[in-house]
Amino acid sequence: MSVITFLSDYGYTDEFVGVCHGVLATWCPQAKVIDITHGIRRHDIRAGAVALRGAVRYMPPGVHMAIVDPDVGRPSRRAVALRTTARNHILVGPDNGLLALAAGRLGGVVEAIDIGDSAYRLDPVCATFHGRDIFSPVAAALASGVKLEETGQPFDPSKLKGIDVQRPRIDGDRMIAQVLTIDQFGNIELNVDHAQIVDFGLKLGMSVELIVDGVDSQANYCAAFADARRDSLLVYEDAQQQLAIAVNHGSAAERLGIERDSEIRLRIA
Amino acid sequence: MSVITFLSDYGYTDEFVGVCHGVLATWCPQAKVIDITHGIRRHDIRAGAVALRGAVRYMPPGVHMAIVDPDVGRPSRRAVALRTTARNHILVGPDNGLLALAAGRLGGVVEAIDIGDSAYRLDPVCATFHGRDIFSPVAAALASGVKLEETGQPFDPSKLKGIDVQRPRIDGDRMIAQVLTIDQFGNIELNVDHAQIVDFGLKLGMSVELIVDGVDSQANYCAAFADARRDSLLVYEDAQQQLAIAVNHGSAAERLGIERDSEIRLRIA
Amino acid sequence: MSVITFLSDYGYTDEFVGVCHGVLATWCPQAKVIDITHGIRRHDIRAGAVALRGAVRYMPPGVHMAIVDPDVGRPSRRAVALRTTARNHILVGPDNGLLALAAGRLGGVVEAIDIGDSAYRLDPVCATFHGRDIFSPVAAALASGVKLEETGQPFDPSKLKGIDVQRPRIDGDRMIAQVLTIDQFGNIELNVDHAQIVDFGLKLGMSVELIVDGVDSQANYCAAFADARRDSLLVYEDAQQQLAIAVNHGSAAERLGIERDSEIRLRIA
Repeated sequence: MSVITFLSDYGYTDEFVGVCHGVLATWCPQAKVIDITHGIRRHDIRAGAVALRGAVRYMPPGVHMAIVDPDVGRPSRRAVALRTTARNHILVGPDNGLLALAAGRLGGVVEAIDIGDSAYRLDPVCATFHGRDIFSPVAAALASGVKLEETGQPFDPSKLKGIDVQRPRIDGDRMIAQVLTIDQFGNIELNVDHAQIVDFGLKLGMSVELIVDGVDSQANYCAAFADARRDSLLVYEDAQQQLAIAVNHGSAAERLGIERDSEIRLRIA
Repeated sequence: MSVITFLSDYGYTDEFVGVCHGVLATWCPQAKVIDITHGIRRHDIRAGAVALRGAVRYMPPGVHMAIVDPDVGRPSRRAVALRTTARNHILVGPDNGLLALAAGRLGGVVEAIDIGDSAYRLDPVCATFHGRDIFSPVAAALASGVKLEETGQPFDPSKLKGIDVQRPRIDGDRMIAQVLTIDQFGNIELNVDHAQIVDFGLKLGMSVELIVDGVDSQANYCAAFADARRDSLLVYEDAQQQLAIAVNHGSAAERLGIERDSEIRLRIA
Repeated sequence: MSVITFLSDYGYTDEFVGVCHGVLATWCPQAKVIDITHGIRRHDIRAGAVALRGAVRYMPPGVHMAIVDPDVGRPSRRAVALRTTARNHILVGPDNGLLALAAGRLGGVVEAIDIGDSAYRLDPVCATFHGRDIFSPVAAALASGVKLEETGQPFDPSKLKGIDVQRPRIDGDRMIAQVLTIDQFGNIELNVDHAQIVDFGLKLGMSVELIVDGVDSQANYCAAFADARRDSLLVYEDAQQQLAIAVNHGSAAERLGIERDSEIRLRIA
């Protein structure tokens, strides 16, 4: 196993990501490191969890290191390495829900290790940069063949923190959905998965009424952006097989005045 | 051939680029992937085409994957893989003009394959993310040794979409040029190449009058930024051997109030 | 030696970084390239020098290429390759102070080569893009085993440009510090290192008075962000072992109205 994937909210302006790469290359020179993204909104655990879930099924087997860690340095926040059911997929990061959705996608956690005092961490550990001093050296150790159980203290996987992602509710002929993420282009992903789309009865070509803060908009349910007229709203099943809203060549978030955690009501028109 | 280069307008905020890297690593683990940039302005095919043309001559032989694809999912927009005259340089991307300038730089296209229904694409194909589901797996297949003709259906290269890059016009003692690209620092690249600079008679040290929207500015024709006084305009031949305008330690685009597609008139003063 | 690290102010929007990667891969295909960051503020030599100093101790041995080069193309600005005391750590970049702090961290320069006319540079050399035409091909040559002395003309290392980083001053019970860098999250790093923190008498849990432009604020000296209340100021020793100021879940730079080069007075309350 010599792939390490890496997702964080460290951004691109500073040297934080590069320093972690240096630690990975020092301790596992043969690893191929794949940056999933470092553009997660600062401290947005849910956005990180959703992005990691979507990405991990396209990653080769390896160590998936993810860091969105507002409570770095707080003793009650565990640093963890997790073996999943999916063969040779290991997750490394803070135990704050960030890894929860990816762990589910990988079939669940079968072994959990607290790596806060790992023998593989750097010494000293800086209380504000566990990415460099704990997560990277432990991920590198795992990628270079160290056994999971040797990286720290085992604990009961049922103690792992979850993450709260609500399910859409049905109210008469309306579905009350919530915004899961908004991408940089203003495309809005809702908490409605493929099965829930089917259950709701949406079919290509249907017209959908979108109600946000009491304001109605109309959109067509399309397969591709280009199926909608330029600058018009569309509803579609996105690349994560979630229901999503876009504006062809524009920003749906701007058009609808939507923020993360907004509620959207949908009705088949 | 085990180099894949990758240019897109996917940006850095979301996981789109990382997911493509995961697909590339899954299907061609031995490939070295070089990110040219993912900061192309959204849907700006011409900016992508110009950046790819400038970059490709500095890339090792390999598969050059480029994705700026406003019409993703529209059946009339072909997905293509192109063999060029330059030995072992293959282009992969949408057929919307994005690849046209790089193809020219590589000596032209000698074999064109429609990869929309490629046996190497992922299944299912999402109509909004061909980067993940078509371009990446086909690029990985090519990089791992699959023959070009096995990746899809051949078609006549003369049917490929071109891209409209105007030539500068001469009007008396003036050259009427157009803005090709503006970089993040506000340096303005014009549609005037080395030969056209020579034809126009520009020589180092000359003073040049720049007319934008009827407003005149003066600039010196210099070799380096540092040859101009701090905060003053200069005209120079840039790293792509195109005529360009800069402000030493500043932004020429801001100084001149220039936008993409603006017209600039130049006169040797 | 086949690691190349790369730091610059080239940003992510344009293809500059990717083109340098192409040159590196062409001339040293076996090198592993680690991007430290390309988000250094344009022309901010000191920010680049500080970031490089902090990063280099976490990098494997290799060629460390750094480019923040406002005077590119000016004949008086040397392009250099430097052997340091640290075994197999070589620095490549402009001689403008950018490499000075990293060189110090690596034990000082023992051999300096002017690579401006290196036999390994590309031909022709563009006066505005030495990253592509001089620094990258020379770094690649060094990473592929070319001897340092073969890359150009030796000169006296004592002629290298330094960089002015002031030391904090003590004025009675106050320490007058200066802002070294501000990261993208608004965390402020001061010119106060670990030894100076100890000398000043700061201990965990102490309350510190911060005076900026005559305005007082209170902060606790903490180990971790999470030791401070949400949205409150804290002072801490950061990952570079420098004194720093943060707001837990916020921006200290915004809170204090601080800019780079601002002066901050600190007093133990």
